[in-house]
This record gives sequence, structure tokens and C-alpha cells, in this order.
Amino acid sequence: MYYLIAYVLFFGYTEFMPKIVDHEERRERIAKAMWQVILDKGMEGATVRNIAQEAGLSLGALRHYFQNQDDLLVYAMTLVKDRVTARIEAIMKRGLPPKEMVMAMLLEIVPINEETRIEMDVWFVFVAHVKHRKDTVGLINDGLFEAFQKMVGYLHSTGWLKEGLSLEFEIERLYALIDGLAMHALLDPDRVDRSRVIDVIRYHLDSICRA
Amino acid sequence: MYYLIAYVLFFGYTEFMPKIVDHEERRERIAKAMWQVILDKGMEGATVRNIAQEAGLSLGALRHYFQNQDDLLVYAMTLVKDRVTARIEAIMKRGLPPKEMVMAMLLEIVPINEETRIEMDVWFVFVAHVKHRKDTVGLINDGLFEAFQKMVGYLHSTGWLKEGLSLEFEIERLYALIDGLAMHALLDPDRVDRSRVIDVIRYHLDSICRA
Repeated sequence: MYYLIAYVLFFGYTEFMPKIVDHEERRERIAKAMWQVILDKGMEGATVRNIAQEAGLSLGALRHYFQNQDDLLVYAMTLVKDRVTARIEAIMKRGLPPKEMVMAMLLEIVPINEETRIEMDVWFVFVAHVKHRKDTVGLINDGLFEAFQKMVGYLHSTGWLKEGLSLEFEIERLYALIDGLAMHALLDPDRVDRSRVIDVIRYHLDSICRA
Repeated sequence: MYYLIAYVLFFGYTEFMPKIVDHEERRERIAKAMWQVILDKGMEGATVRNIAQEAGLSLGALRHYFQNQDDLLVYAMTLVKDRVTARIEAIMKRGLPPKEMVMAMLLEIVPINEETRIEMDVWFVFVAHVKHRKDTVGLINDGLFEAFQKMVGYLHSTGWLKEGLSLEFEIERLYALIDGLAMHALLDPDRVDRSRVIDVIRYHLDSICRA
């Protein structure tokens, strides 16, 4: 779930800026500015100059934190990845029954509200831009597959999964289903709206879980 | 199956160019040049000038066929859509048993060889570029959902689908599964290789079809 992207980038830290420079805060502010520029102007408009302007910083101040556009891209995607991971871990701690826990996690991945739609929008542009570059492979492959392994493994080890299923193929199938739904929710939001997404995921989980 | 894209653009008409100008042939040649430029330089490099150079035509000759980059984009995507439709219709005429027919069609959609990988690569860049534009909505929504409706409906009407399934959700689920697999085959081809794609699709079809 590439898509979980920029969530906090957009919605954290916006209310109040302390006057003492907090370097991590400033790095995040710059990353947020970058997402905004990508959304407004596309990847080709995401120059260091435009990003500095959006962030309200001088070019020199921005370069203090990031040498070039690529440094910034890598930081922005890594930051998102860390925070999304944190969000999924927070769900784990809620102590929900296994099937509901997996349902809640999956709904963090598919863009069913304005915030997650923005995230996926940006992710899409980002991947289209970097997918031919060897050094970004680790960024695109963001550990989501491992998350799906854990989710399906958890349903299995807690006895929720039906007998006779292949764990390996159930992981692959669920991962593909969710990323496909995410893409359809982004590109065809009228048909694949929030309730549709929820219904299809529930239908699928019902088909692989005991009654 | 956005992804089915540029297939024939790349692999038709390349052997031999007649000296008499065939206008439709020339339009296709220009469209092919456009895909090549997108692959080489990304969407921001797909200027009318670069495309004319790639096609070996003067700027004036190119403008005779296409006023601007957008005309060209629309033509290129429409052409692909028409030809992919033709490919799927060709499978229909082969008289395969229903489940095998659907399998063969689905394997036309997921990028499991170099040609289809190129198609999806280009599609990805294309969609990232146009998805905010209202006038291209019809291009992105390319009738694939309707194709999935027909496939699942056909399995149902021929008695291959298991009892008790929801046709509506099976259509949505298969469509999302295939587009998700297509994306994973593009972005993580080492893990999601040809045999993996085939196995997962077969696993899914087995789960919804009678033995």
C-alpha cells in the first residue's frame, strides 16, 4: 500500500508553527510542499524552486535539507511509509477480533475518502516517474506484501481461515484484490465508492473465513 | 485492461513501408513513435517535436495528422483500445470451453511478457498524466468493466459458476484481482512472474467454478 502515502504529510503539523526551527518539522513541511506541487503541476513541475516557493522557504534554506529533487522524493516516500506502518500498527493494538482487525487494516489501504485519494493520486504520479530507476525499487516495494503475509497468516493461526485454502495464494490474491480495488476507487470513484469497496472486501473475507 | 495498450502499435506494420502514403498507416506510425518517446523520455518529453523526430517526419507533416500532443494521445489510446478489443474477440471465436476461454482472455490483460509489460508501462505514465482531465475520462474507462461483466456472466449462464455466489461481487472481485495482479507484475516482476500470475488466476477461477 503504496497508496497510504502522504496522509500525515497533509494533515499533521499544519495548525501551528513554533518559532524555534525544528529540523524534522521543517523537513516534513518541505515534503508536504512537494506533494502539493506534484498535485498541482505534475511531476515535471516538482522542481526544487517550485517546492521552495510552496514551502515559503528560500532556495538556500531548502538546499540545507535536501540537495536535489531526488533526495526529497526519497525522503517524502520514506516518511509516508513509516507513518502508514505506524497507522497499521495502531490498529493491531486495538484488540479487535481477527477478521475485523484485517478489515480495518485493509480499509486504511484503499482510497475511500478525500485524504487517501490524494495519497494515491500522488503515489500514482510518483511510481510512474520512478519505476524505471533501480535505486528506487526499495521505495516502491514498500513492505506491503509482508503486511499481507502477516494478515492472512494471522487469520490462519487464529483459526478464522477456512480449511483447504492455500496460504500462499490467498496472500497473493488478497494483495492483488486490494491494490486493484484501490486503483479502481481512484480512477472510477463513482462506481467504486466507499460502500462498494467495503462490500467487496467483506464479500471476499467472508469467502475465505469460517462463518 | 488499460494495460493491453500499445501492443499492435509496436508490433504491426514495422516490417515494410510502402512508398505510397497510406494515411491510416502513417497515423499509426506516428502513434508508435509517441509511445517510444514516452518510454524513453517520460510524458514531459512527449512533445510534438520529439515525436516528429522519432517518426522521421517533419513537424509540418506531423501536424497534418495531429494538431497537438493531446490529439495524438487520444488517438493512440483509442487505437490500442480498439485493437485490444479485437484480440479479446478473437479469443471468443476460438470455441474454447468457458473456463479456459475466460482464462485466455485474462492472460491478455496481465503483463506477462515483454510486449504487454511495455504496454502497461506506457499506460501507467499515460493515466498518471491524464487522470485529472475531464475529457479523457472516457479513454481511461475503457470498457474493461463491461468485459468482466460478460466473462463472469458467461461462466454463470453456461453453468460453470458455483451456486450461491453474487454475480455482482464476483465481477468486481475478478476485475480488481486482475488489475492488481497486472500492477504487481509490472512493479515487482521477479516475484509476480508469468507462472505466478497463471497460478493465481487459476486458483481464483477454481474457487468460483464447479470442479
